[in-house]
Amino acid sequence: MRTFDSRTAALAPEFGIMCGRWSQYPALDSLPFDSMWCFVPPGSRTDEDCHPEAELVVVPDGEARLESPQNTVDASPGTAVLLGSRERHVIHNRSEGSPLVLLSIYWMPDGLTEERPDAR
Amino acid sequence: MRTFDSRTAALAPEFGIMCGRWSQYPALDSLPFDSMWCFVPPGSRTDEDCHPEAELVVVPDGEARLESPQNTVDASPGTAVLLGSRERHVIHNRSEGSPLVLLSIYWMPDGLTEERPDAR
Repeated sequence: MRTFDSRTAALAPEFGIMCGRWSQYPALDSLPFDSMWCFVPPGSRTDEDCHPEAELVVVPDGEARLESPQNTVDASPGTAVLLGSRERHVIHNRSEGSPLVLLSIYWMPDGLTEERPDAR
Repeated sequence: MRTFDSRTAALAPEFGIMCGRWSQYPALDSLPFDSMWCFVPPGSRTDEDCHPEAELVVVPDGEARLESPQNTVDASPGTAVLLGSRERHVIHNRSEGSPLVLLSIYWMPDGLTEERPDAR
């Protein structure tokens, strides 16, 4: 077993928040997806993001609101949200006092192998 | 965006606990993994499990302890645990009073295409 802990992950500023990409963990090439921890401060939000990868957002801690041009959904622990390829989105921390921790799991859909500057 | 909520998922008894496989959600064939919600009652544990798929266990809610023959790790929200192919494991709810909700993400590693009766 290998444990990955968001509290000890190396973080860097991306998308207007702090992110810990799982590429920092050695020998994870066998996973069929990429992943990163995301920390959205209380009352804050991510920059708008749009990428060719599909993305599953899991909520380990806090209260999220995800906005896309099509709809807005709230997500809390026990909920996951799937974003389609090139679906524009912003993620808000709905709480003014508590952190929001997300686990973003993303992958290039079959048939999409495009390499672009804005790829995740 | 599509939302998947563990609280409204259809559940069935598996592995000594209640599980909600994501195969219940239509048109999810595009994901490069399978997934299920798992609910471990307070003070309880899963049956021992062992399968050819690798598995990433995410903890949306509660306090887990995962045991394998090699090691024992505790996992809480903000932590994820990777189980290797055919790594035997039991998952305990460390709390006597609170539920444990897990999101299990699993996939067949490259080169393993074996179909077995104990496959997930």
